[in-house]
Amino acid sequence: MNAESNLPRNFTDILALMDALPCVDEDALAATRARDACLTKPAGSLGRLEELAQWLSAWQAMSPPVLEAPVVLVFAGNHGVAHRGVSAYPAEVTEQMVSNFASGGAAINQLASHHGMVLRVIPLDLETPTQDMSITAAMSESECVDAFIAGMSALPERVDLLCLGEMGIGNTTAASALCAGLFGADGGDADVPRWVGPGTGVEGDALARKREVVGEAVALHGTAARASALEGLRRLGGREFAAIAGAVLQARLRRVPVVLDGFATTASAAVLSCLREDGLAHCVAGHLSSEPAHRLLLERLGLKPLLDLNMRLGEASGAAVAVGLVRCAVALHTGMATFEEAAVSGKLAD
Amino acid sequence: MNAESNLPRNFTDILALMDALPCVDEDALAATRARDACLTKPAGSLGRLEELAQWLSAWQAMSPPVLEAPVVLVFAGNHGVAHRGVSAYPAEVTEQMVSNFASGGAAINQLASHHGMVLRVIPLDLETPTQDMSITAAMSESECVDAFIAGMSALPERVDLLCLGEMGIGNTTAASALCAGLFGADGGDADVPRWVGPGTGVEGDALARKREVVGEAVALHGTAARASALEGLRRLGGREFAAIAGAVLQARLRRVPVVLDGFATTASAAVLSCLREDGLAHCVAGHLSSEPAHRLLLERLGLKPLLDLNMRLGEASGAAVAVGLVRCAVALHTGMATFEEAAVSGKLAD
Repeated sequence: MNAESNLPRNFTDILALMDALPCVDEDALAATRARDACLTKPAGSLGRLEELAQWLSAWQAMSPPVLEAPVVLVFAGNHGVAHRGVSAYPAEVTEQMVSNFASGGAAINQLASHHGMVLRVIPLDLETPTQDMSITAAMSESECVDAFIAGMSALPERVDLLCLGEMGIGNTTAASALCAGLFGADGGDADVPRWVGPGTGVEGDALARKREVVGEAVALHGTAARASALEGLRRLGGREFAAIAGAVLQARLRRVPVVLDGFATTASAAVLSCLREDGLAHCVAGHLSSEPAHRLLLERLGLKPLLDLNMRLGEASGAAVAVGLVRCAVALHTGMATFEEAAVSGKLAD
Repeated sequence: MNAESNLPRNFTDILALMDALPCVDEDALAATRARDACLTKPAGSLGRLEELAQWLSAWQAMSPPVLEAPVVLVFAGNHGVAHRGVSAYPAEVTEQMVSNFASGGAAINQLASHHGMVLRVIPLDLETPTQDMSITAAMSESECVDAFIAGMSALPERVDLLCLGEMGIGNTTAASALCAGLFGADGGDADVPRWVGPGTGVEGDALARKREVVGEAVALHGTAARASALEGLRRLGGREFAAIAGAVLQARLRRVPVVLDGFATTASAAVLSCLREDGLAHCVAGHLSSEPAHRLLLERLGLKPLLDLNMRLGEASGAAVAVGLVRCAVALHTGMATFEEAAVSGKLAD
């Protein structure tokens, strides 16, 4: 580990960080639950909005929870495998969309602005795509760790809720390969078709090619991925995947609750769940993407999405929409009157 | 009909209004779809948020759609049937919660304020509960029409999106009876158990009693309700039910899109759907309540809820949370750059 920071130099350092994760703050959680029980509504009648307030509170170690500095990070990467024709868009769209983010024209710009969130877009060596994972590992360990560190370092000083997302032409191919590698039976080959979907909108021959490419990658790297999730990330992921995993870890170390976006983002975070069973305990799934494999992955991780709006854009858009629910949860928990304050009669004795 | 207004004097006048409903504005819809197709995202990748922008536009007859004056109406009523012990809370809670709304302490106050919505709470003769529907009709035709008019008249002059909800101890009993009456086979008796749930939280003996009371009401009024939905509303509903139906109708006449709340609100609106197949075409279901019958009812009406957060509070809370999604939809549709503006490459030829 670097002496001056908690930044890892290699996979061994990352594993050491995973051994020292903070857990839920039970006192803050108990205090938030106690206040919730007094608010003027039948117990439990705000459902998941009550759970969100408690989750925020438990990880922030604050009661009531706060939401004053929500941040969106979007990591962008380019993929060697894109030259195999696995996307409906040309590879230069990654860089063009990064320009679109910079000039405020993309979906995530509107959502971040609407919800008062700071948006940071982090392009990761776009001019140097990863290697083609269907013939060799996507990254070396040092490339992978560099991207992981870029993710850890991307959190601003002031942040009390973090939305994570990505942009990268070809990256649902990587996400499918990573999932099949991490979770597929027998090294993942047989499972490949269930993890592959249309992504930005491929169909027909292109979709068949995408399945084939993922199959080749998983045949090559599946066994290594099953043995070590960080090896899976290095061989089958991409820079934005490593960066997201790094950001999720850093958020945990700093007690910042995380809202995950769709398939590629959740696949990146899944690496931490393979390293440690409660590795994603501070995360919620912002939404269920219409990319079919996202449902499989969320089930595997035990995450129940907040929204199901048939979205499949990426760039943190689903997570950013879900922040609206977190905002509602905080407004309700902090603003509502108690039965006593409002002189409202409580529940009748059974 | 009153000469000076469109307000009905009786059920016949309401039926006449139902014959003259405006429909979708095809030009506005086409213009909004055309712009959507040029925005920097794969076609369809914003899922239901795209649909919401189109829906708003089609009913407002405006492209782009606007969301500058969203309004929440909460109608409160008291129910004779409450004295049968069908709720977990005493009947005086209706009035106490109206005071809580007035002083800003309820859930809906926080949500309306958070989303910049005008909130109007309309108590409907709380000191005079409806008759006990298990022994006679809940209302006379004139009481029912008065409440319907109160709903029609409650829309402020400036409104471009309307959220509807209710408060009334005992009113999930009425909602269950109304649904079983309108939709149950053979006058509804056999279907009663599937329409009855815990409401504010009744269980055990109290839940059995609630089922019994609903069964008695449906046995008495089911045949009349099946023959005429307005008779169903009068006999098995309550003042807040009639008011919600009136507000939904007035919104349609004024081309204001409507977001419905949970079970009792949807049951009220369902009356219009029985009167005319496309009677609720300008409405979306804000959420799926955890009251089990809400799912049945939405399926029956062909409405797919925007949210599923295990909420069951009523008072328009689910609809108000869903307004956050409509706000996102409008921000995206109006703020995003087109492919041309952003110089982003389009989809590759298949």
